[in-house]
Amino acid sequence: MTTAAARYAGTRVPRVEDARLLTGHGTFVDDVVRPGMLHACFVRSPLARARILGVDAAEALAVDGVQAVFTAADLNPDVREQWYTLIGKDVPDTPRPPLAEGEVRFAGDPVAMVVATDRYVAEDAAELVAVDYEPLPPVVDYATAGESGELVHAGYPGNVAGEFPGAPFEEVEPVFAEAPVVVRHTIRQQACGQVPIETRGMIAEWSAPTGELTIWAATQSPHEVRLFCSRLLGLPEQRVRVVMRDTGGGFGQKVIPQREDMCVMLAARKVPGPLKWIEDRRENLQSAGMSRHAHGDVRIALGDDGAILAAALDYVEDVGAYPAPWPVGTSAAVGMFFPGPYRVPKAAWATTSVFSNTCGRTAYRGPWQFESLARELLLDAAAREMGLDPAELRRRNLLRRDELPYTNPCGIPYDGISPLKTFEQALEMLGYEAFRREQERARAEGRYLGVGTCTYVEPTSAAVGLHATEGATIRIEPSGKVNVYVSGGSSGNSIETTVVQLTADALGVDIADVNTVQGDTAVTPFGGGAAGSRSGSMTAGAVAETATVLRDRIAAIAAHRLEASPGDIELDGGRARVRGVPEAGVSLAEIASAAYFQPESLPPGVPAGLEASGRYRPEHPLIYANATHLCTCEVDVVTGAVTLLRYIVSEDCGPMINPNVVEGQIAGGVVQGIGNALCEHLAYDAEGNPVATTFMDYLLPTAAGIPDIEYGHIETPSPGPGGYKGVGEGGAIGAPPAVANAVADALAPFGAEITRLPLTPETVVALARAADGR
Amino acid sequence: MTTAAARYAGTRVPRVEDARLLTGHGTFVDDVVRPGMLHACFVRSPLARARILGVDAAEALAVDGVQAVFTAADLNPDVREQWYTLIGKDVPDTPRPPLAEGEVRFAGDPVAMVVATDRYVAEDAAELVAVDYEPLPPVVDYATAGESGELVHAGYPGNVAGEFPGAPFEEVEPVFAEAPVVVRHTIRQQACGQVPIETRGMIAEWSAPTGELTIWAATQSPHEVRLFCSRLLGLPEQRVRVVMRDTGGGFGQKVIPQREDMCVMLAARKVPGPLKWIEDRRENLQSAGMSRHAHGDVRIALGDDGAILAAALDYVEDVGAYPAPWPVGTSAAVGMFFPGPYRVPKAAWATTSVFSNTCGRTAYRGPWQFESLARELLLDAAAREMGLDPAELRRRNLLRRDELPYTNPCGIPYDGISPLKTFEQALEMLGYEAFRREQERARAEGRYLGVGTCTYVEPTSAAVGLHATEGATIRIEPSGKVNVYVSGGSSGNSIETTVVQLTADALGVDIADVNTVQGDTAVTPFGGGAAGSRSGSMTAGAVAETATVLRDRIAAIAAHRLEASPGDIELDGGRARVRGVPEAGVSLAEIASAAYFQPESLPPGVPAGLEASGRYRPEHPLIYANATHLCTCEVDVVTGAVTLLRYIVSEDCGPMINPNVVEGQIAGGVVQGIGNALCEHLAYDAEGNPVATTFMDYLLPTAAGIPDIEYGHIETPSPGPGGYKGVGEGGAIGAPPAVANAVADALAPFGAEITRLPLTPETVVALARAADGR
Repeated sequence: MTTAAARYAGTRVPRVEDARLLTGHGTFVDDVVRPGMLHACFVRSPLARARILGVDAAEALAVDGVQAVFTAADLNPDVREQWYTLIGKDVPDTPRPPLAEGEVRFAGDPVAMVVATDRYVAEDAAELVAVDYEPLPPVVDYATAGESGELVHAGYPGNVAGEFPGAPFEEVEPVFAEAPVVVRHTIRQQACGQVPIETRGMIAEWSAPTGELTIWAATQSPHEVRLFCSRLLGLPEQRVRVVMRDTGGGFGQKVIPQREDMCVMLAARKVPGPLKWIEDRRENLQSAGMSRHAHGDVRIALGDDGAILAAALDYVEDVGAYPAPWPVGTSAAVGMFFPGPYRVPKAAWATTSVFSNTCGRTAYRGPWQFESLARELLLDAAAREMGLDPAELRRRNLLRRDELPYTNPCGIPYDGISPLKTFEQALEMLGYEAFRREQERARAEGRYLGVGTCTYVEPTSAAVGLHATEGATIRIEPSGKVNVYVSGGSSGNSIETTVVQLTADALGVDIADVNTVQGDTAVTPFGGGAAGSRSGSMTAGAVAETATVLRDRIAAIAAHRLEASPGDIELDGGRARVRGVPEAGVSLAEIASAAYFQPESLPPGVPAGLEASGRYRPEHPLIYANATHLCTCEVDVVTGAVTLLRYIVSEDCGPMINPNVVEGQIAGGVVQGIGNALCEHLAYDAEGNPVATTFMDYLLPTAAGIPDIEYGHIETPSPGPGGYKGVGEGGAIGAPPAVANAVADALAPFGAEITRLPLTPETVVALARAADGR
Repeated sequence: MTTAAARYAGTRVPRVEDARLLTGHGTFVDDVVRPGMLHACFVRSPLARARILGVDAAEALAVDGVQAVFTAADLNPDVREQWYTLIGKDVPDTPRPPLAEGEVRFAGDPVAMVVATDRYVAEDAAELVAVDYEPLPPVVDYATAGESGELVHAGYPGNVAGEFPGAPFEEVEPVFAEAPVVVRHTIRQQACGQVPIETRGMIAEWSAPTGELTIWAATQSPHEVRLFCSRLLGLPEQRVRVVMRDTGGGFGQKVIPQREDMCVMLAARKVPGPLKWIEDRRENLQSAGMSRHAHGDVRIALGDDGAILAAALDYVEDVGAYPAPWPVGTSAAVGMFFPGPYRVPKAAWATTSVFSNTCGRTAYRGPWQFESLARELLLDAAAREMGLDPAELRRRNLLRRDELPYTNPCGIPYDGISPLKTFEQALEMLGYEAFRREQERARAEGRYLGVGTCTYVEPTSAAVGLHATEGATIRIEPSGKVNVYVSGGSSGNSIETTVVQLTADALGVDIADVNTVQGDTAVTPFGGGAAGSRSGSMTAGAVAETATVLRDRIAAIAAHRLEASPGDIELDGGRARVRGVPEAGVSLAEIASAAYFQPESLPPGVPAGLEASGRYRPEHPLIYANATHLCTCEVDVVTGAVTLLRYIVSEDCGPMINPNVVEGQIAGGVVQGIGNALCEHLAYDAEGNPVATTFMDYLLPTAAGIPDIEYGHIETPSPGPGGYKGVGEGGAIGAPPAVANAVADALAPFGAEITRLPLTPETVVALARAADGR
């Protein structure tokens, strides 16, 4: 049996999430109000590093409405097991006390939690908690942390959290020594926050009589929260229920529970009502996590013809005081993907993760993206050095289709990618040659235009550990309407729309007849959550796996009723028809009614009901997507203003389930990447004080500064279900190098090289002036 | 692969519901509070029959806080389709307008619904709604309704709602004409209410942006409510979500949505917030439904040896004004089961259902139970007439095991029953002969003791229509803990405990490791709900069906890990072991972790995950249970007080899943039956005014008047899963005749015959006096 050609997959189906979200009817965690709910507020360290000599909560406890003030002594001893399913229990990790114990390690470190009947009361009382600190010298700059003599965590000499030796440098040194052209820079990227619209938040409600804990969480992965909480408290997994309806973005920050979440979980059994904690923006920028902060000594060796001969990366990243999840593993990907989608015969790499007294490194959309930034900046620098157009240099080195499968020098086996195609498509969409002519004309007028690109290959849908499988339950209800259950949850990735589209196609029904239920661990099958650009392809697999069982059953019932062979039945428009005999059909409603109410009418061997639970298990642990970003800009060398003119993305994420969703994902990532490139900076002063804890200081890009993003799509199917690939992270990977290269190209007449972000007006002016000799 | 011997089935596992219920943490519909919730109150007719000339809501609408006053004109036109899945759409039925239209048909008929921000405001405003009635002569007594000249519903001449001609009387008349003994009485049963502790109630919350209606309901069948509501409003089935957590009893009253429920559903889209209606006790006794009200001209013909030669029943029942569900079908069962578990060569029967201007007949635990009442009273009367001990008469006529299978003269094919065994067991538990001697001694002292029995056969688990199948989804979560999903819902039948026991046994895990999720149509598989003594056996089938798939998968994985054959794996105590090698084992947690996180470690062909959805479809549409009730009493002929001395039930419901649950079901039914026999009476005066609308007037039995119930169990397996049979209704069937026979036996010295219930003190005194000639 077959379904007719997919009716919804590939089309711009309007998002099912939008009905509630656009009308203000979304349910974020702060929208959940429980009877008798209490409110938590954290007392946070004002110092980057200090010994805690004492905490006096007496005054706070005397405030009317204050129920409790918890310190490390109250909560930390209750921790039973503390590890993330995402990471596994056997990975070495630093202690992550729910509340600071003995020492505070960054300005914002939670020291105490105040619980009151009202959020305002809790905030006021938190100011009355007196913490006696003995200041200690902080390790603010990870780059010099090795020599500071102070340790963020005892037991980590030189403040090194972890290292990957990667591929040895000795093997590439001879190539660098002999190569006609060697370009080498130290590329530095600033710390950025994920800055979801919805800050973190959680409600934990303990039912003592039943021993059940219900959690409403702002999360990307309700099942990770459930497993983590179950271990943290020593509660059976099935007695913890984690519910999310809408989550206002995560971008890695909400992929796992953090320390404040643990505090709420631990305190839930000690307070007389449901406990709500909603992070405010200041806390989010101060404590929810940073990412991107890193530098690398990067080199490329090229032949006279522009062919890349070798690449080397020595990478050092800041992991802050309490990184979560443990980021050391991710750093290896920086090294392994540094060669990108280029023909690179030899490569060497090493990575070092370093602690500092700043907030912890957390996951961030494409956490390995430094590889693209470093590589693409160097390629442009090399082109300038060689007097080659950077497009021409890339053309000579980008992998061609006929070279695939190709294993890069770090052992990554690429296949099903189209880097050269996306590159050419992006250039064509721009009219690259015409732009170069325009650029020349503009320069003649004293206007500085630039074009920059970034071509990358992206590992998506890593199917390991927590992410190894994904499940779906589909119930065709007695009226023929469909409920489909996946772990998922609406965190901004349109997964509800995706699931509904795929299910409607798989069962040949109208999309309006499909409802999806997600984001409640008591309701849906186990799933890995929204991370690693996995939701689309993994869920597609889960839906396909499950729908097949139902399609076969429907075909058997329809064939029996229509006196046809099951192989001749096709499903379309909510009807099962005999192929070639369109007038012979039976509605899904009739089939469903029979399956539930007249099981005696079913053909022999066909079970009653129309419901199935299936689980997808990919054959390929990684699926490779790829893209080229292209950006043009005009730089005002007097004010330092960078105006983006056009932004083009040519993306190959395989066939698109919904182009609107794909483009939405790309757009969101691109805008984040533009912010990373031009303005965002989670900066600290020399004493370790965060200096960007409001949106007055932490500068986000706005719609006014972003051009309409133009999309080109290349579709090279992956070996996964539907040929789909992940697309959630790419936008944030490609944008920083594309923008930086465009600015560098604009500033080329000044001989400037860009080696650090962000490109704020003062930086741009300084670059132009320095090179200018002014 | 096998699981070890059942560890929980058959044992007195404490109820899992009790943790929350006994600590006051149950969540009944009135415990659900939604933000912005509005409250409904009904304006009800004070007259049994009247024309509605007008409704003036102006004064009510002027009250501060009143949001709306709905009349028939507002709500009734929105009804799209109105039929119950339980009954089917093709059964003829009277119109059932949500609000009374044109005419009110009983005192309590809802005429308008007031919606206000507060229940008190709604109640006050309801009193301000002015309804202009033109009184019409009511048809109060169904027994004379045929001659009244007035019609409750136009189009039903003689007020006959429906008739079953059954089996013709002509065929038995010759037997009656020639039989040595004929006993004939008109047996009358009064109207009773189901009287659940929780009255009816519903909250309906409409989400306009998403087109979703969420309903919290006090119901026995959330999926019936969903399907009904979906049709009523023309909403797709998957956009209606029905949630129940705890329901405080239904006993038939909550098996389907009634008119007030429809009003709430219909109004939900017209009011600006979630709409709650909680019935008060007066409304419940006035409008929620009555049952049992019937009489029958019943006859038995016997030979000189006491052998039953023929039986005949001419049955007439009161169905009130708006019966729901349509009861006419059930009345046939009264006729067909009238011969009971006795050897009856010939039988004739006919039934008539008659409208009256009283509240509608609704389902009630064992809705066909008149057959037992009539038969068992007649048998005792026959024994008295023949000078035989009623036990001896029964012994001569009860079906013996060696006569099975046996088809009764009405075509009912009994098998797997043990009437004679339960009868003998009950007598033995009492010490029947000793009691007879005690009775004689007591009579000599002027004390009147009596003993009465009732032996019946009961059709359970009728697997047709809505009830044809039952589904379960089981998810073994990554830690090896288990979630099991069935439609069910806690309405007092302990189904949560049953499901957890069965699942723990089926998977060989500790019962504490199993959690069940029920009572939410967005979450669980479709199911028929708690009705017809079906939940235990049907759910057992669903769990067994589903667990088999998982057991096979676990065995395959364990065998692979333990290098054994899947056939040699047994599951016990949360571990899979190799039979005969108890030290070789692997925990379910390890197996589950592998199934979700290391699918590559699974044996070939074994799918990832440990979750399955299955559906049970019985081979036998009916399963027969049987029992004998035995009651002894002392009657005070001066005060009319009936004191029950002992109450014994010997029940054959097959193997017991949980004796506590079985005995709890029996006890609940017995107490209801005792109430029916002795005190309850939903009475009307001659004008059709209900006179028992408080617990001061509607007399329920209390713990003080009920002896400890003694249980004997006979276990004849049924052909269903586990050999289980239904047991939910039996208690209420057997008790009224057993009690009435005991009273009759006590009053035998007065020559009194009992032919009507309830046996209130005045009735008992009258019986003794009348016979006494006083």
